[in-house]
Amino acid sequence: MKPEKILFTVLDGLGDHAYRELDGLTPLEKAYSNGIKRLKENGSQGLMDIISPGVPPSSDVSHLIMFGYDIENEYFGRGPIEALGEGVELREGEIAFRGNLATVRIENNYPIVIDRRAGRISSEQTRELVEYLNDEIECPEGCRVVFKPLSEHRFVMIISGRGLSHEITDTDPHAEGKPILLCQPIDEAKDKKGAERLANIVNEITIQAIEKLSKHELNKKRAGNNLPQANAILVRSAGTMRRMKSFREKWDLKAACVAAGLLYKGVAKAVGMDVYNVEGANGLLNTNIQGKTSKAVELLESYDFVYLHFKGTDVASHSKNPLAKYEFIKRFYESLKIIDDTILNTTTIVITGDHTTPCDRGMHTGEPVPILISSKGLRSDSTKVFSEREAAHGGLGRIRGGDIMPILLDSIERTVEYGTRPSPRRINYMPKELTYLRLDI
Amino acid sequence: MKPEKILFTVLDGLGDHAYRELDGLTPLEKAYSNGIKRLKENGSQGLMDIISPGVPPSSDVSHLIMFGYDIENEYFGRGPIEALGEGVELREGEIAFRGNLATVRIENNYPIVIDRRAGRISSEQTRELVEYLNDEIECPEGCRVVFKPLSEHRFVMIISGRGLSHEITDTDPHAEGKPILLCQPIDEAKDKKGAERLANIVNEITIQAIEKLSKHELNKKRAGNNLPQANAILVRSAGTMRRMKSFREKWDLKAACVAAGLLYKGVAKAVGMDVYNVEGANGLLNTNIQGKTSKAVELLESYDFVYLHFKGTDVASHSKNPLAKYEFIKRFYESLKIIDDTILNTTTIVITGDHTTPCDRGMHTGEPVPILISSKGLRSDSTKVFSEREAAHGGLGRIRGGDIMPILLDSIERTVEYGTRPSPRRINYMPKELTYLRLDI
Repeated sequence: MKPEKILFTVLDGLGDHAYRELDGLTPLEKAYSNGIKRLKENGSQGLMDIISPGVPPSSDVSHLIMFGYDIENEYFGRGPIEALGEGVELREGEIAFRGNLATVRIENNYPIVIDRRAGRISSEQTRELVEYLNDEIECPEGCRVVFKPLSEHRFVMIISGRGLSHEITDTDPHAEGKPILLCQPIDEAKDKKGAERLANIVNEITIQAIEKLSKHELNKKRAGNNLPQANAILVRSAGTMRRMKSFREKWDLKAACVAAGLLYKGVAKAVGMDVYNVEGANGLLNTNIQGKTSKAVELLESYDFVYLHFKGTDVASHSKNPLAKYEFIKRFYESLKIIDDTILNTTTIVITGDHTTPCDRGMHTGEPVPILISSKGLRSDSTKVFSEREAAHGGLGRIRGGDIMPILLDSIERTVEYGTRPSPRRINYMPKELTYLRLDI
Repeated sequence: MKPEKILFTVLDGLGDHAYRELDGLTPLEKAYSNGIKRLKENGSQGLMDIISPGVPPSSDVSHLIMFGYDIENEYFGRGPIEALGEGVELREGEIAFRGNLATVRIENNYPIVIDRRAGRISSEQTRELVEYLNDEIECPEGCRVVFKPLSEHRFVMIISGRGLSHEITDTDPHAEGKPILLCQPIDEAKDKKGAERLANIVNEITIQAIEKLSKHELNKKRAGNNLPQANAILVRSAGTMRRMKSFREKWDLKAACVAAGLLYKGVAKAVGMDVYNVEGANGLLNTNIQGKTSKAVELLESYDFVYLHFKGTDVASHSKNPLAKYEFIKRFYESLKIIDDTILNTTTIVITGDHTTPCDRGMHTGEPVPILISSKGLRSDSTKVFSEREAAHGGLGRIRGGDIMPILLDSIERTVEYGTRPSPRRINYMPKELTYLRLDI
């Protein structure tokens, strides 16, 4: 038996530091137990810089790099990925933004954000206000704007038109007590003119939205009930919808995703993976860990590559709680008991993070993430415990995010020797390309 | 408390081999003691290739790479850096050379160098001869040449004019008993014509200098006193003065330098660091180590980044003296006692070398240098002793010189997530960019 399938597990924000309350260990070190021992003995670990040493990646970029995408040429901003994750359909070329209904107070003509979520206004009221904006707002420059309501105060804003570039800044100040930011081209914008055009549109829409929303009946009612008015919009993360090469086109692997977080589902959809939901999975600490692991293992029967994502580790990190992080990893390890010897022998299993989020800093850092690759197709190493510190002298050494897919393809014999011309192995990899010699006799 | 400052210490030529006279240890291993122990326990080590494995860097290039400069596009030769280190003012576009007054004997019309330093002629006499050259030499091709005397036999030669390229070879044969070399364009010159033009000028000036100097009264006197005549000039390290982006513009960090060696001061000045002198600091083995370390620590109060350079380790290496190197490192470690817990908690402290200079080879080699990064903001590793051999399995793995600045910026939370648009972190990083939306009401 040799591995033919890949289970790719991401424990979000996995990398961490050592803590006194965990007996001087990191959450990952403290959680080490029987559940993971078999995988460690069957595998090799290392440290991975998703981009390069010291550079913290955002989660969507990190996943795309690990899936083998070229960010410079194949990534078009976070907005469409989040929109896809929310189930919003987008067409090629449309520019998508994430947005909030918010509460502002006008001071010296500047709208000051006093509640970024308009008192977490209900989904119902957001729908009503967003549809009102769709009727009322006149998009300048011959372009078109559409708002789509999401849960609570959230919406997606979609702008379409010619000569636009999404290389612009957010209007969302990401803090309360600050004015709405002027939308501007980013310093590094390649299409400065298109970015300026879009920035002007966004500023104009923002101004119109403040005028229109303040007149809406619902806001008058909210004011009467002493509720924060939803009298402004804040938008962020502009990105252009582009059809990306699917994971299958790129690697000839049929791929599925088991994730609850919207961003991760969005990434999976953007690269054409089939996304599966699991009951009780919620992207939080109390998610249905066993349900997700079991679903992922079950999907290995019909898919070549299963991407399994857990957000709990990152949630614990952002709330600076190493104990909760340790406990989450421990519960995940327990869920691995369903991996029997057959699965272990026929599957390359990866456990890694998309970035380091140390509990003491509570934010993404540029430190490398630990990665464990358990595979009968690959060499194992001499380290004992899967951990950030042992990974530093593990068999994988220090690799980059873009190294993963080649390593995984190699483990299941789906790659080609560099320098080798079409060989049985390559032909196996690209059967659809076969063409035969025909003689004219 | 978290780190907000950076102390960047370079022990020149730090990397080394193990020696029998040091009990089979390297100078760095042998020196390990309490002074460094706290930093090691608080940090992570690794091996660093300044450029790439096997490529020995020169000291100026090495420092610029570690400071995050792009050598291909931002480095214009060593001459101006050495001139800046000597306190010589240069204007944009001027081409600077380091030079020696030397003694030659004419044989079959070839000037053979018999003393590269003209008997280490005094600064006073060098000043007199150099001013004489300024009056006498006629620079060809409508260009202009100026000589500026330095200590002993040394001077700086500055050529200015149009259509010149510094991509030329030295006239200094860097050895005695050899003829002065013909100045020529280097093989890789991009501006071949400009390099040819400058090479012709340098050859013409060299011929004129030999003619003029041999006629000078002073040389007749020296001959009478049986002293080597200063009857020729040798020049080397041509480079064009270009304003480099300052360290502050590049990284938004206010930076200071504590160094005695001229080249290191020159690099610091070239990138706009404030350079501080310390009494008794001389770039040699008997320098004032404690004074320099104390000054650097004191400067952390008013600067974000302090670059502390010691030349002693390299001096010992070039004289093939591992014992002296070990003792120098040990004295440096003792000087670290002034680093109290507050400094340890609020400062990212780096100890590394700019290249490996093993005592048994007595020259720069392409072996990686050990690097220790002690920071409360970063993960620590499981290695015990800071040394070349333990660094090979330390938490940093094997990094490149260009990785340092991102890692250091990450440790003090002054970097930005890759892929994320303006966020609180980015806004914090670029406060000058904030602009607000203004309503016309």
